[in-house]
Order: sequence, then structure tokens, then C-alpha cells
Amino acid sequence: MGNLCFGIDIGGTSVKLGIFTKEGELSDKWEIPTRKEEKGSFILKDVAASLEKKIEEKSLNRDDIIGIGIGVPGPVREDGTVLQCVNLGWGIINVAQEMKTLTGFDTKVGNDANVAALGEMWQGGGKGYKDLIMVTLGTGVGGGVILDGKIVTGSNGAAGEIGHVTVSYDEPESCNCTKHGCLEQFASATGIVKETKRMLEGSDEPSSLREVPVLSAKAIFDAAKKGDVLALRSVDQLGRYLGIALSHVAAVVDPEAFVIGGGVSKAGEMLIEVIKKHYEQNVMLALKGKEFKLATLENDAGIYGSAKLILGK
Amino acid sequence: MGNLCFGIDIGGTSVKLGIFTKEGELSDKWEIPTRKEEKGSFILKDVAASLEKKIEEKSLNRDDIIGIGIGVPGPVREDGTVLQCVNLGWGIINVAQEMKTLTGFDTKVGNDANVAALGEMWQGGGKGYKDLIMVTLGTGVGGGVILDGKIVTGSNGAAGEIGHVTVSYDEPESCNCTKHGCLEQFASATGIVKETKRMLEGSDEPSSLREVPVLSAKAIFDAAKKGDVLALRSVDQLGRYLGIALSHVAAVVDPEAFVIGGGVSKAGEMLIEVIKKHYEQNVMLALKGKEFKLATLENDAGIYGSAKLILGK
Repeated sequence: MGNLCFGIDIGGTSVKLGIFTKEGELSDKWEIPTRKEEKGSFILKDVAASLEKKIEEKSLNRDDIIGIGIGVPGPVREDGTVLQCVNLGWGIINVAQEMKTLTGFDTKVGNDANVAALGEMWQGGGKGYKDLIMVTLGTGVGGGVILDGKIVTGSNGAAGEIGHVTVSYDEPESCNCTKHGCLEQFASATGIVKETKRMLEGSDEPSSLREVPVLSAKAIFDAAKKGDVLALRSVDQLGRYLGIALSHVAAVVDPEAFVIGGGVSKAGEMLIEVIKKHYEQNVMLALKGKEFKLATLENDAGIYGSAKLILGK
Repeated sequence: MGNLCFGIDIGGTSVKLGIFTKEGELSDKWEIPTRKEEKGSFILKDVAASLEKKIEEKSLNRDDIIGIGIGVPGPVREDGTVLQCVNLGWGIINVAQEMKTLTGFDTKVGNDANVAALGEMWQGGGKGYKDLIMVTLGTGVGGGVILDGKIVTGSNGAAGEIGHVTVSYDEPESCNCTKHGCLEQFASATGIVKETKRMLEGSDEPSSLREVPVLSAKAIFDAAKKGDVLALRSVDQLGRYLGIALSHVAAVVDPEAFVIGGGVSKAGEMLIEVIKKHYEQNVMLALKGKEFKLATLENDAGIYGSAKLILGK
């Protein structure tokens, strides 16, 4: 068995690629653009060509390469079949098989949010845990469930869709998923801004946020850290919705730890503390005292996790 | 390898015991009382003695016995250590090891609700599925999570505690677990009665239930089946809380099916339909269309599941 593997994270704009040692060291990383023309039919070929070029460039021994792990932005079956990736133009396609045909290397494929969770477990904020939940607070809210060191995929690849847990039953606006009151509507970067705007518009309460030209999650957390009462209330509401959603998650799989990532998590310990507070208020005794950690791998979580996919437990 | 195994379900009043073939046929079953005196220290000895007696009585060949599976009413670690069984008087005790010492047979131990879920997967309402959630609506609300044909235990043995998912945020009364608004407070046999009493006492609305001397879950479902408007509203509320809780569960593990058991499930298809209705209203597209099944093994689910524990996948 070799000592190297490739970890690949296919996104809507670019593909990230990395070379890892079995021990988890990232020895090289680079990016190529995602060509979405013709239903994304160039993407895997571009990836294969880029890998071949890198193998030549670095004079890598092919026998030293264990295989390829790939994260894709859509639901994936256990056998590596992608059911649909709207962002890439893909319909049903067996990515694992196609990549093996193109490169000769064994390939494993996972959903990008799940793979990021695996990456954080392996070498990131969740290092040392085998049962963890990762929540990514970005443009949307993604999630990944890892049990016994392995991704839980679910029967249709929809496990870990924590962003679409209903947390409010009287939300008039609809989520991107068409439901109402999803966690994503409150805890994504856009959700926090929208909720804070509601608070600002719904009262005359003084707030430093009224002077901020373009409201952002960062601006709201910054104001909260300086003691702005309205901003603090908005952060507390965010923590409440997250704490409630994670209390539901805990009652299902009883993980060791939660890892919080994505752009919003740059708020740091204040975010962790407010989630933890509401989580503790909403779980039974046997589920109290879980660890809450910040993700550490940022945009590399996907390539780390993809590499771990092919390396196995 | 032998062809027989024992499935044992230790309850607070009695211990159920069964002999199973590898193929899942229950060839004999019996019960013994649960002696809870002296911190439950007689229980495992009584079970071992009863098994020995049965082996002799039926002239079973010891080489033909694969092992023993045991379900216990409390959290259990992967290694068979029980952390606490209040109902049996037990503190921390390695049941698997002790039973192996007493009988010489390999022993596996699981939480009773989890083991019942495994039993229903193997030979009950969930037959044919590998990823399923069982919900038991009895005096309390129990749950079990099965993924890839195996029980999900959780890091502290508290996975599948679906009865303690918060479904109402303004419930003044507290649950047995000390939280407020747990599913168990609404969807257990006692919960349904309590909620219906609230409805009856909160209005002068006519209802056939006002003539019922002792309100029960059965009486409420019977009245609903006859079209009683208040009873129908109570059943709908029950379905709503269950549908919401199961929508949360689905977003975490994306199972193939839900199996509903326990005394309340005797209400049959009406219960299934009302849960399904509210579930569908509360999940995203990728999680719609799950199967909802009634449990079929009743009080034998525990011995079936315990037997399956020792037989493995």
C-alpha cells in the first residue's frame, strides 16, 4: 500500500486539490477552475488531467498513490453515485467509477458538507473524536454527521441536513428548500443579517448597528462584543436556534462533540458560548456536557476530508 | 458455530426469555420475576439459573448455543457495561462479562429501547430495512436508531432518546427528565390523556369523551375514529408533535423508515396517517416519502432484538 493520496473538493467556482500523506500531512495544494459548460462534463476530465500533470511535475511514483477522495456539492450514494449537483450541472453520474476509469486510481466520493466534517474530525477542530457533528454556518447552513469515525450518509444521501431542521413555527418567509422556519433562515450569514434588520426595523431602540452602512454577521458580532444590546439580543437568538437544533441532533445520535465552522464561526468563542448555553437548556441530563469546538481547517476541510475518505478509518 | 441463541429482555417486573434459531424463529419463550432486592444482585444469577434449567429440560447441546443477548432498561456502553438501571437497582456493572462468567456463553448487551428497534428491524414491522428509527409510545416515549443494520448507541448510550426532543417551548409542566416540552409529555399514553383533558377542561365544546369515565389513549382514538371533533383535534396535535420530532430525526440520519410501536400504536393506521401528514409538512424534499410502519412484535420485540444483538449483522 502506498503512502500518498489526493483529496479533491469540487465547488461551483473552483476545484481544490491536495496531496496528503497517510498520516494526514498536506504536502501540496492547488486549484483549478470548475468548467460548468455542457452539463459539467469537463469537470472530472480537468481534474484527472491536473492530477496527471502534478504526478509528472513532482515525479510521483504511481504505486505510492493509494487513491483519490472527492467531495461534491450534492447528495451521494455509498457507491459513489451522485444523484444531482445543480451547481455543477450534473445529473446522475457515478463519479467514483468515472474517476477510476480516467486515472486508474481507486476513488471514493462524498457530499461536500459530510466530507468537511470528516476532515475536521481527522485533522481539525474535531481531532480526537470519533462521534461528532459538524455545522457549517456560511451562505447556507450545512451539516455532517460522523459516527465511529465514518460519515453517516443516510438512505438518500440527506443525512446531516441540519440547516433544514425546523426551529420556528411561525416564520412567514420561506427557506430556499421551500419550507418555513428552517435553521438556515436564522443561522446562516444572510439569516443573521435578516433577523437583525427585522429587530432594527421593528423598534426605535438605539443601536450602533444603525450606523453600519452594510450589515454583516461580522458587524453584528463586533457590536455585540462591544456590548450593543440589540446586537447581543440578535446573537442570543442565533444561539438559541442553534442550541435548540443541536439539542434535537444530540437526542438522535448522542455525539461526543459539535464542531462549528463556516464564515460565521469567525466570531469565535462568543458564538460557541451562546450556542452551548442554549444547548444545555434544551437537552436532558444524559446529553449535557458535550464539547463545542471551532473548526480550524477553513477552506481546506473539504480536501482533508476527501483524502480521509479514501484512507478509511 | 451453533444454531441457537437466547434473547433476554430484563424489565422492572419480569424478565422475558426466548430461544431463537439463527434464522429468526422463536422456538420457546418464558418469563421469570425480576428480583430487585439487594440492589438487583440476584437478577443475572436468576437469569443464568433459568437458562441452565431450560438447557437441561430441552436437552439442548451447549455447542449449539451461539450466545446470549440481553436488553436492559438503561444506558449501555459498547462493551456491555450498564451505567445505571434505576428500575433494577443497578449501578455500574458489566452485564456482558458477568453473564459470560455465570454461563460460559458469549453475551452482548443493549439498551431495551434500542434492542426493541433491532428486533422490529429483524423480524417485525421494519423487516427489509437497514436504516430505521423506532419510536415506542408507551408510558413514556422511547426510541431506537438503527443504521446499516446496527444499533446506534451514542457516546453515552443516550442515542435514540427521541422522547426528550423538545417540541413545545411554552409548556409549563416539567417532564420526568426535568426539561419542559419534551415529546414524551405529549405523545406518551399519559401525555395524550393529559392533553385531551386540557382541551376538555379548557372549553365547553361538546365531546363524547365527556361521558367516558376513565380517559385513555384508546378511548381518545376510538372517539376520533367515530368523528368526535375534539378527539380528532387531540389526535391531530399528537400527530403534529410526533411528525415534527421525526422530521428533526430525519434531517440527522435520513432513515429509510420509521416504525411506531408501544401501546398507543394499537390505534393503528389512523395514527400512522396523522404522523405522516405532519412529517411531510415539516421535512425538506430530499427527506419526503419515508415509510411509516406499525411495529408487529409487541412485547416480544425485546427478546427478538436481544437475540439479533448476539447474532450480529
